[in-house]
Amino acid sequence: MLSSYSAELAGLAGARCVVTGGLGFIGSNLVHALVAAGADVRVVDALVPQHGGDRRNLDGVEVEVLAADLADVRVAEFVAGAEVVFNLAGQVSHHASMVDPLRDLDLNVRSHLAFLETLRRVVPGCRIVLTSTRQVYGRPERIPVDELHPTRPVDINGIDKLACEQFHLLYGTVHGLRPTVLRLTNVYGPRQNLQKDDLGALPVFIRRVMNGEPIRLFGTGEQQRDCLHVDDVVRAMGAATADRAVGEVMNLGHEKSWSLREIVQAIIDASGSPSTIELVPWPSELARIDIGDFRADWTKAAELLGWKPSVELADGIGDTVDFYERHPWYRSST
Amino acid sequence: MLSSYSAELAGLAGARCVVTGGLGFIGSNLVHALVAAGADVRVVDALVPQHGGDRRNLDGVEVEVLAADLADVRVAEFVAGAEVVFNLAGQVSHHASMVDPLRDLDLNVRSHLAFLETLRRVVPGCRIVLTSTRQVYGRPERIPVDELHPTRPVDINGIDKLACEQFHLLYGTVHGLRPTVLRLTNVYGPRQNLQKDDLGALPVFIRRVMNGEPIRLFGTGEQQRDCLHVDDVVRAMGAATADRAVGEVMNLGHEKSWSLREIVQAIIDASGSPSTIELVPWPSELARIDIGDFRADWTKAAELLGWKPSVELADGIGDTVDFYERHPWYRSST
Repeated sequence: MLSSYSAELAGLAGARCVVTGGLGFIGSNLVHALVAAGADVRVVDALVPQHGGDRRNLDGVEVEVLAADLADVRVAEFVAGAEVVFNLAGQVSHHASMVDPLRDLDLNVRSHLAFLETLRRVVPGCRIVLTSTRQVYGRPERIPVDELHPTRPVDINGIDKLACEQFHLLYGTVHGLRPTVLRLTNVYGPRQNLQKDDLGALPVFIRRVMNGEPIRLFGTGEQQRDCLHVDDVVRAMGAATADRAVGEVMNLGHEKSWSLREIVQAIIDASGSPSTIELVPWPSELARIDIGDFRADWTKAAELLGWKPSVELADGIGDTVDFYERHPWYRSST
Repeated sequence: MLSSYSAELAGLAGARCVVTGGLGFIGSNLVHALVAAGADVRVVDALVPQHGGDRRNLDGVEVEVLAADLADVRVAEFVAGAEVVFNLAGQVSHHASMVDPLRDLDLNVRSHLAFLETLRRVVPGCRIVLTSTRQVYGRPERIPVDELHPTRPVDINGIDKLACEQFHLLYGTVHGLRPTVLRLTNVYGPRQNLQKDDLGALPVFIRRVMNGEPIRLFGTGEQQRDCLHVDDVVRAMGAATADRAVGEVMNLGHEKSWSLREIVQAIIDASGSPSTIELVPWPSELARIDIGDFRADWTKAAELLGWKPSVELADGIGDTVDFYERHPWYRSST
């Protein structure tokens, strides 16, 4: 689907870009697209074992990689000259954040604050596009959820990501960086780590269906999610480097939402798997941090960026299953 | 004014209470009131030199004091058996938070998160009343500002205090602690550190006026503030231990707001000082984090706690000036 990137990333040809978390799922897809667009790309990635980053995600492209946390002193020299920073580094597991709250704070807030201090010193005025999460809203009071919806996160990860957003925006208003925040919903597609059970529901579904295993859904399985193909996220990140997006917070999402049951069925249909769906009761420790149904209102991104999602779920799932069939190591445990 | 505490704190007679930041301004006033009410009080205070805590603030009462950060391992044993924790520890200087953002994060967020982990392990189910700040709202979109106003802090300290609030509420919903958050406006009264220039405008005004020095106000001097006497805050903290306040966030404030110029004039009037008022241009680094006029809507606290402010500005300033005349060390530099 790479050809669809061209319009939004064309303006970055020749631009010096840094992608943090560039060995991870969304980050590595972005790096492939930026390189294809002719950007000068560097990657910072801490390669935290639990996080799903993998050097093989950048197979086929030549970019310089610094394996380091954002707070590492080596980052300053590495980011010198950057015009655009795509900041995707961080821990995404809600469950891990509840098990070790201080670690999530360090990874998702403290390291980013140190990184912002580095950027304002080394590359004042640089553009920075941060990926955040719908989790900052907590349980929706209304659907679809727009950017004016109250932000009341229901887990440590959501609180930390919200603080991280606010630091980025503050460094725009007081220190001259030029930030944009994109709040993502459930993202799926190639190069996602499928082996870990706490990086999101979709990669677990994909792995288990492709391996022919049964799928367990909590509760009724009717929870609504507006899934977004990673290509659409990459296009939005390119569009978000426009000057008019500076200082803005925008949701990304899809026109449609689907139930978890429908999403699993789409994966089963695409892969021809014999997997079946089982409904099981909510584990109490997860029920307390579940947000119920969700669909984002992304009118603002449409208006400001001229962006809209281009990939339908059935097509996107088909593309994704096809990718993992061609790259079976993603589904194996090694 | 101690007699006015009786109603709100009477229910805490015999209760095991911990006051963090208990050597500081509001904390020490609370400790005096709790001891007078017959509570069993312990104090944790890190005595950070820049923060204004002082052992002399507890002259005249006998309470056990642990000089430690909230994240200190000794805290667990010290808080064992606590029924109510009044959590006032932290850094209040907006300016300091901008100069050293990571330190503010450590003091106002990381240490509190570690403290919450300690509490849920050692005293699960305990009541915890956190003092927060109107700074979490940022620049008001409307006045008075109620608790549904968007939270968009304009400085590091405000971002950190908001994250701290959210952690407290989360430990209520998922871990069984019973938190209440009180958002304070400008608080004045006895036992405030007057010597440091970045702990709030009011103590600087009081020191300079009582020392006969000129007062410089930024801009027009017409910025509105709803000042609250510390006795009213102490009464609210007592009332906030009621079960119906669990899980709630409430503003405290006054019916009236005053301009900074009126506040300074009230101090001049109360002290008979020859001080004069000068208007000077905003320093740019402060202008960027100024919030303009502010007045809190505290209807929720009135309804839920049966609380309302009882001290008028002129009376409260008179009482405050009188206290510092009787305790001149607060105004000296040693």
